[in-house]
Amino acid sequence: MNNIYLDYASTTPIDNDVLESYYKLLKENYANSDSLHEIGNVASSYLKSARQQIANLLKCKENEVIFTSGSTEANNLAIKGVAFAYQNRGKHLITSKVEHPSVLDSFKQLEETFGFEVTYLDIDENGLIDLNQLKNSLRNDTILVSIMAVNNEMGSIQNLQQISKIIKEHSHALYHVDATQAMCKEKLDYSVADLYNFSSHKFYGLKGAGVLIKKEKVRLLPILSGGQQEGGYRGGTVNWVSQVTLAKSLRLGVEKLEEHYKYVSDLKKYLIDKLQKIDNLVINSPQMSSPYILNIYFKNKRGEVIMNALSNKGIYISTKSACSSRSKDYSTSIYELTKDKNISKNSLRISLSHLTTKEELDIFVNELKEIVDNLKG
Amino acid sequence: MNNIYLDYASTTPIDNDVLESYYKLLKENYANSDSLHEIGNVASSYLKSARQQIANLLKCKENEVIFTSGSTEANNLAIKGVAFAYQNRGKHLITSKVEHPSVLDSFKQLEETFGFEVTYLDIDENGLIDLNQLKNSLRNDTILVSIMAVNNEMGSIQNLQQISKIIKEHSHALYHVDATQAMCKEKLDYSVADLYNFSSHKFYGLKGAGVLIKKEKVRLLPILSGGQQEGGYRGGTVNWVSQVTLAKSLRLGVEKLEEHYKYVSDLKKYLIDKLQKIDNLVINSPQMSSPYILNIYFKNKRGEVIMNALSNKGIYISTKSACSSRSKDYSTSIYELTKDKNISKNSLRISLSHLTTKEELDIFVNELKEIVDNLKG
Repeated sequence: MNNIYLDYASTTPIDNDVLESYYKLLKENYANSDSLHEIGNVASSYLKSARQQIANLLKCKENEVIFTSGSTEANNLAIKGVAFAYQNRGKHLITSKVEHPSVLDSFKQLEETFGFEVTYLDIDENGLIDLNQLKNSLRNDTILVSIMAVNNEMGSIQNLQQISKIIKEHSHALYHVDATQAMCKEKLDYSVADLYNFSSHKFYGLKGAGVLIKKEKVRLLPILSGGQQEGGYRGGTVNWVSQVTLAKSLRLGVEKLEEHYKYVSDLKKYLIDKLQKIDNLVINSPQMSSPYILNIYFKNKRGEVIMNALSNKGIYISTKSACSSRSKDYSTSIYELTKDKNISKNSLRISLSHLTTKEELDIFVNELKEIVDNLKG
Repeated sequence: MNNIYLDYASTTPIDNDVLESYYKLLKENYANSDSLHEIGNVASSYLKSARQQIANLLKCKENEVIFTSGSTEANNLAIKGVAFAYQNRGKHLITSKVEHPSVLDSFKQLEETFGFEVTYLDIDENGLIDLNQLKNSLRNDTILVSIMAVNNEMGSIQNLQQISKIIKEHSHALYHVDATQAMCKEKLDYSVADLYNFSSHKFYGLKGAGVLIKKEKVRLLPILSGGQQEGGYRGGTVNWVSQVTLAKSLRLGVEKLEEHYKYVSDLKKYLIDKLQKIDNLVINSPQMSSPYILNIYFKNKRGEVIMNALSNKGIYISTKSACSSRSKDYSTSIYELTKDKNISKNSLRISLSHLTTKEELDIFVNELKEIVDNLKG
């Protein structure tokens, strides 16, 4: 039986070094980092070092690093936190139609329950938002624009620089970037954003740990109230051993970004070459997109059947975002890209890693061919 | 140097068995429990078993178990979630003055930002809310009452049964219980509450994992929107290995509850006997309170100085809740109990465990005496 994981955009295995140092620290000190006694102080200085390390890696200030339980919490905190803190200035918000469920659902809640007005931007055939539409949507009462860095289903990469420029030139709105699929993968200048966030389980770290970077001047209403932790923006006993571990995963990921990028770019080319030889296979991902994500579909074949057949052979890919795996029967992003329900229902997402080998891709492509051939019969 | 931890109400060391099975599982399967392929399904069935186990232990339904990142998130979800979901029925809320910061700050936010009206109940000399005041505070537009089970600073135990009876007889309000300091320690009937929550790091489990139990009929507006996870009440990739581990910690804690309770009750008596022989030492905790928490103070002595001196000798106690350790210079609960700023500024919290030994308490009392004597000179 194979054991070929090609679902790295959903989550990643924990790096061995990261896991070992996590386990060691977990055994070493269990204190609450907000306890004022000696072992609490030791925990607190570990957390402080982690915060410094993250600030250094991302070239921001220490007090701009807010630890969260992951990207979903961070997206909620950024979007609702800004919306509630600035609502006296205006109640108009802008996002795109292809954001992650935690972003889209946050905006939907602000619309339906809290009286905000939201503009959802379309995407073009490259998976990118229309910059003119963005410009024309900006108003005096627009307080926030949230546009992701790398799309989780098709891999399109938005132009953060241009988006930020348009926002700043035509409004007083803040710019939030969900960088969950970009961090440690794409070399982007996040400093153009007022807030951005990511989650360590996407780069070989633990689940349950994430970071929101928030420029000092930006106000936020806390979503999880309570306690003085995280500058008052996020209450609760800090899961500090996980956050210290996140800093390590981030450092490893940032250090190796270019090396991994080059390696995975080659892999993706190799994979596309092979896939293009298969009949009826169509590539959904735009040409200019992240090397880490490739979205495809087969004409007249059910994506779910193919995914399950691959899974039975020990090869793991996905049909869409895991966060909507059970609630939606189609990929939102692929629908917005193609406007075709059939394609978006049957799309398959292959996501790669520096851990992926050409041998794995060979096996994957052969098994895929066999499965699709059998489906014909 | 000693290494005597008497701050178990702040956080607890991880049980060895719990840690080992956590580490094993973390190495075994890294999948996203919402991925639909085989290794995702394996993760998902682990999570399902954990949910079943928790439902069995707490005698509730599986779909009443909502996994969160801890009690602060769960308190926020319960309080704000109910407030926003039922606001069309009324905007009056009731809580007590001695709740945890995550509860008090949630209510403060609902008051200040979202136009709710909150009644904060007083406590009597036993640390208990005045049941008549509760009855008289209930109104037609009261939608939620939140009263904790065991107070984190003084150990007073509210009468959940009576509180629930009064609420149900005189209103349509829901009853929420922050059971963080009670779970696995006090044998209480939580089924009288419509919602209650706890966190595994308080009973020898991991930080970053908690549960909100919510009766099926209760509606909630999600605080962390996104994805179909946790019945739509809590989005985000589930930190499922931590939650599986939480179920194990809970099982161990519930199984040993009575044995531990008896042991710690004896310890507390032993400790009080010894402490009562020290000059100028006053016990703040009410007589009828949790055996796990003992709050004291010394007349004319600074609590912080004593805590630090003990810490220098390897003995760890606290002055107040860790969640307000850096933001407040007094204990809220002790202030409400005594109405004396001086006492509440100088109170000391000793919190015990089944891991605590009489030998540790002997050393603690001797060192405490010596420190206090030296402070005299």
